Amino acid sequence: MRKIRDLGERWVIKTILENIESMPNMPIPFGDDVSAIPLNEEELVIVKTDMLVGETDVPPGMSIRQAARKAIVMNVSDFAAKGAKPVAALVSLGLPSSLGEEDVREIALGINDGAKEYDIHIIGGDTNEASDLIVDCMLIGFCNARKIIRRSGARPGDIVAVTGVFGKSSAGLKILLEGLSPPEHVKKPLVESILMPRARLKEGLMLADLGALTASIDSSDGLAWSLHELSDASRVGFLIENIPIAPEAELFADEYNLDPIDLCLYGGEEYELVVAVKPEMWDEAEKALDIIGTPLINIGRVIEKKEIRAEICGRKISIERKGWEHFRRGIG
Amino acid sequence: MRKIRDLGERWVIKTILENIESMPNMPIPFGDDVSAIPLNEEELVIVKTDMLVGETDVPPGMSIRQAARKAIVMNVSDFAAKGAKPVAALVSLGLPSSLGEEDVREIALGINDGAKEYDIHIIGGDTNEASDLIVDCMLIGFCNARKIIRRSGARPGDIVAVTGVFGKSSAGLKILLEGLSPPEHVKKPLVESILMPRARLKEGLMLADLGALTASIDSSDGLAWSLHELSDASRVGFLIENIPIAPEAELFADEYNLDPIDLCLYGGEEYELVVAVKPEMWDEAEKALDIIGTPLINIGRVIEKKEIRAEICGRKISIERKGWEHFRRGIG
Repeated sequence: MRKIRDLGERWVIKTILENIESMPNMPIPFGDDVSAIPLNEEELVIVKTDMLVGETDVPPGMSIRQAARKAIVMNVSDFAAKGAKPVAALVSLGLPSSLGEEDVREIALGINDGAKEYDIHIIGGDTNEASDLIVDCMLIGFCNARKIIRRSGARPGDIVAVTGVFGKSSAGLKILLEGLSPPEHVKKPLVESILMPRARLKEGLMLADLGALTASIDSSDGLAWSLHELSDASRVGFLIENIPIAPEAELFADEYNLDPIDLCLYGGEEYELVVAVKPEMWDEAEKALDIIGTPLINIGRVIEKKEIRAEICGRKISIERKGWEHFRRGIG
Repeated sequence: MRKIRDLGERWVIKTILENIESMPNMPIPFGDDVSAIPLNEEELVIVKTDMLVGETDVPPGMSIRQAARKAIVMNVSDFAAKGAKPVAALVSLGLPSSLGEEDVREIALGINDGAKEYDIHIIGGDTNEASDLIVDCMLIGFCNARKIIRRSGARPGDIVAVTGVFGKSSAGLKILLEGLSPPEHVKKPLVESILMPRARLKEGLMLADLGALTASIDSSDGLAWSLHELSDASRVGFLIENIPIAPEAELFADEYNLDPIDLCLYGGEEYELVVAVKPEMWDEAEKALDIIGTPLINIGRVIEKKEIRAEICGRKISIERKGWEHFRRGIG
């Protein structure tokens, strides 16, 4: 019998979906960033679960408090991408029995850190003994049914945009995994981006509230992966003309002779929003984010043909469908 | 530093709660069977998560499909105890990479079995690589704010009742763990109670709808544990005069020279409801359950003094606060 380590995560997800009866008229399809239940004609209850597993999601150098905080942040990021406000969270813990009493306190404090930052209340949970450290967070919130942004609405002519620069998290992860030591002013922000990621919740809520977006996703599986997902869900293509690189990631790439574009495209654990903006709403959207100090960076446009082409400063770049895949140990 | 294997699950939960800021005016307090968010003056969104871990929650002889189904059932049972209707579920999976392709199908089918039985739709989830098999199910549903039954409302004079006989699951678990072989007609129902547990959802919804209950809990940590929890939350005591023993559990106890009362009290994985019934509603409540073929069994009454006394057929029985506790390996 084939093992899932050979089949990979996408096969696992596909197989599970094939064997489960789905809800009729789901307001948000399987595979989008969150799930929803209609509350009435106007409103949706939004829910999301994303499990943090010590072995695969906690790099060396990340404290247990930071790991627990991250378990909240990664779920908030999915709410952010949909323009939905999280209100409360449940947290299920799997704890190795060898953990010490201080570890338990740190986990609680980390969960609390994440919850406070995004104005969420922890309302329940469950604790269990497990071999791995597991922090499985479930967020619950609400969204206006007309304002939620799916992955599927991008139309040719829309502007493709992101809420920040890329490349920091790939570089930061490389530093932590390989024990690299670039100069401190380069190292610090790169490592920080991995240890203390931030979700773009305010940005997502503002953009959804404006009605400026036609499609949205977060970049937690990498920019390239996010573009492919948006392309598939919206059945459109993208012409990418600009990939905004974090200056520290550029310095890091220089130092270690890496391609900075690769750092930007195939990162993951980078919680920016990748969105399609209605062209007529561009100015308003840009101004709205400017007020809270976040750039809305135009990286290209939506095209009809279902392909992802990139031409940056005259250089043709192929944006492959690559990103982290569980079970296969590494980039699949 | 002390390890959590020495400190136990209750210490872990206490420590986490001490380090988390709680939501003001929680409609249902921490420690009750489910959590809630007010939707409006009338309605609550109800959520619950309970993680199934292969190592501790799946006895030998239970198939992976049955384990996945159980992950749903154990969460449904908590909704049942509160009189809340579950509508949808998220399922987070932790899967060892050595699992085979058929295992994944079986897990999906098991989740689907549980969901179908209780008319729940799986609307999302997450898959991860983990050392243990983890099936973390999160249920979402709704309840009228005036009808939900907390653990805390029992009043002196109320009748204490249960929705079925006890002892089967302790006996069934003993058979599976110790490889015992009582006669088939005894063994089958006992083992079945462990492999295919059923939640009393219809019963809980009917009793809540009638407004017949003042307090309720399920017996998933054992009858004795449930009585102690109700007693603590309601600040009352109980006089227990009858402990209904499953005939098969009685035969099993005879065969292996065990105390059948112990099998009933300190079981766990037994998903009956343990409730306090308003005396003036008793007849109506009993009749309502009778229509769906479920007994409502009077086991005693609520008393003012906060103690749990039991006198069964003239024999004084002490009902200790014992039940399964994670980390401590066994009954704590």
